[in-house]
Amino acid sequence: MATLEPEIVSTARCFGGTQRVYRHRSAVTGTDMRFAAFVPPQGDDARLPVVWFLAGLTCTEENFTVKAGAQRVAAELGVILVAPDTSPRGEGVPDDPDGAYDFGLGAGFYLDAIQAPWAKHYRMESYIMRELPEIVATTLPADMKRQAIMGHSMGGHGALTLALRHPGTFASVSAFAPIASPMNCPWGEKALGGYLGPDRATWRGHDACALIEDGARLPGLLVDQGTADGFLENQLKPQLLEAACAKAGIPVTMRRQEGYDHSYFFIATFVEDHLRWHARALSVSKS
Amino acid sequence: MATLEPEIVSTARCFGGTQRVYRHRSAVTGTDMRFAAFVPPQGDDARLPVVWFLAGLTCTEENFTVKAGAQRVAAELGVILVAPDTSPRGEGVPDDPDGAYDFGLGAGFYLDAIQAPWAKHYRMESYIMRELPEIVATTLPADMKRQAIMGHSMGGHGALTLALRHPGTFASVSAFAPIASPMNCPWGEKALGGYLGPDRATWRGHDACALIEDGARLPGLLVDQGTADGFLENQLKPQLLEAACAKAGIPVTMRRQEGYDHSYFFIATFVEDHLRWHARALSVSKS
Repeated sequence: MATLEPEIVSTARCFGGTQRVYRHRSAVTGTDMRFAAFVPPQGDDARLPVVWFLAGLTCTEENFTVKAGAQRVAAELGVILVAPDTSPRGEGVPDDPDGAYDFGLGAGFYLDAIQAPWAKHYRMESYIMRELPEIVATTLPADMKRQAIMGHSMGGHGALTLALRHPGTFASVSAFAPIASPMNCPWGEKALGGYLGPDRATWRGHDACALIEDGARLPGLLVDQGTADGFLENQLKPQLLEAACAKAGIPVTMRRQEGYDHSYFFIATFVEDHLRWHARALSVSKS
Repeated sequence: MATLEPEIVSTARCFGGTQRVYRHRSAVTGTDMRFAAFVPPQGDDARLPVVWFLAGLTCTEENFTVKAGAQRVAAELGVILVAPDTSPRGEGVPDDPDGAYDFGLGAGFYLDAIQAPWAKHYRMESYIMRELPEIVATTLPADMKRQAIMGHSMGGHGALTLALRHPGTFASVSAFAPIASPMNCPWGEKALGGYLGPDRATWRGHDACALIEDGARLPGLLVDQGTADGFLENQLKPQLLEAACAKAGIPVTMRRQEGYDHSYFFIATFVEDHLRWHARALSVSKS
């Protein structure tokens, strides 16, 4: 694959490591793509595990990077953080015809679209599972045999479905307020219908609950969900994920966090727990 | 003073406390003003010390609030964080004639302007030292006898000069990459000249180094300054502050942080040290 070497957009020292933003030409999406990466100080001497963070609707690589405060913990634990963008962008990339926030730009839903006009550029699953790991492996001091994944909202859906669809890739999976079953909520129905077409059987391959029902498995799962999250009842529906995991015997730690909403203040509060959870699975915890 | 009760713009649970943004009519600036406040969980049962954070050029109440990660430490220490905006805003508020980022909107420099057309609205010193504390005292579970102040860049200048001009108000003062002597740098010369007029004798009242030379004193000072900060040589000049403090016998802990720049990644890395420093002075440290 003729992927050009990524170009550094910015770099800043942070908790003894470096927070970087890269831009590169993507052969998969046919666009320029950006991603953020935090390399902790331990990266000077060793290849380190990678924890992926997939962001939610409207976000870019920046939101988690500037708002979650995760670098402090990553620097202690010695893990690399990688935060991709949430969709292709740029000239020629189609957007929601009404400019809605929940489809098109900023709303790639971590799948490869098969419907025109989306199929040409909206290939976020191949980008994140195939192309970007190659770039990370050659650009950062990363040990790609040790990867974990987490995400928020649409990115929680992404973390769950990508881990379910690519077993063995991630040692652990966690999510903040994930869209638990896109087949059963307005955001998901719009996205899956738009990117994949009307056949709901096809949608099952990109719905965490349906994937589990159909036999896919996770190594274990940590989920935090705020009880004051305005999207809880109509869009997120964690009870569907709990039920699917229970039926399949997948161990899930589902924490309902009293009074927390859908914001990065919620993520910032609990990201330390998630990183320590992943570090245990990746065997880099100090404790 | 006929100050209306502030209205809550947003509230979010964060590290067991609440992060709020307020809007209120300001009698001092003649505009609506916004400020952010984090109230830690201890605020349910007690009146707590207040740590002020004054932000830099182009910022609002939001930057520190979403980027610094300070709530985690404030929740542990039991201190309220208050982050004001950096200038008046809104219809009728004049801006830099060229729309420059370093004067006018987002660049109030924490002083009361005396030159037309700025004098009418640009009264940030009176706002922060007189009006906003009254609002904080009546709106939040704050113990106004225990206050500390810190700031970044233009806000570091603000923290230093307000503490020097109002002795006894703040138990401790700290700064991230402060403008050490606005009389001696382009940002400061433009701002002081614009807001105060050409008489440099007047400027001395709003220059930390000149205030110290003229006899004002601080209770002690912590400063962090990144060595890779692009503004270090031409704008910030921490050596002037070091020299003024040394001559006056003011104890200063000046830490040059290797490789750090001017960003909130720098602030996020060291804000815990600053909050613990302030907590010691405010006698609320657990350790």
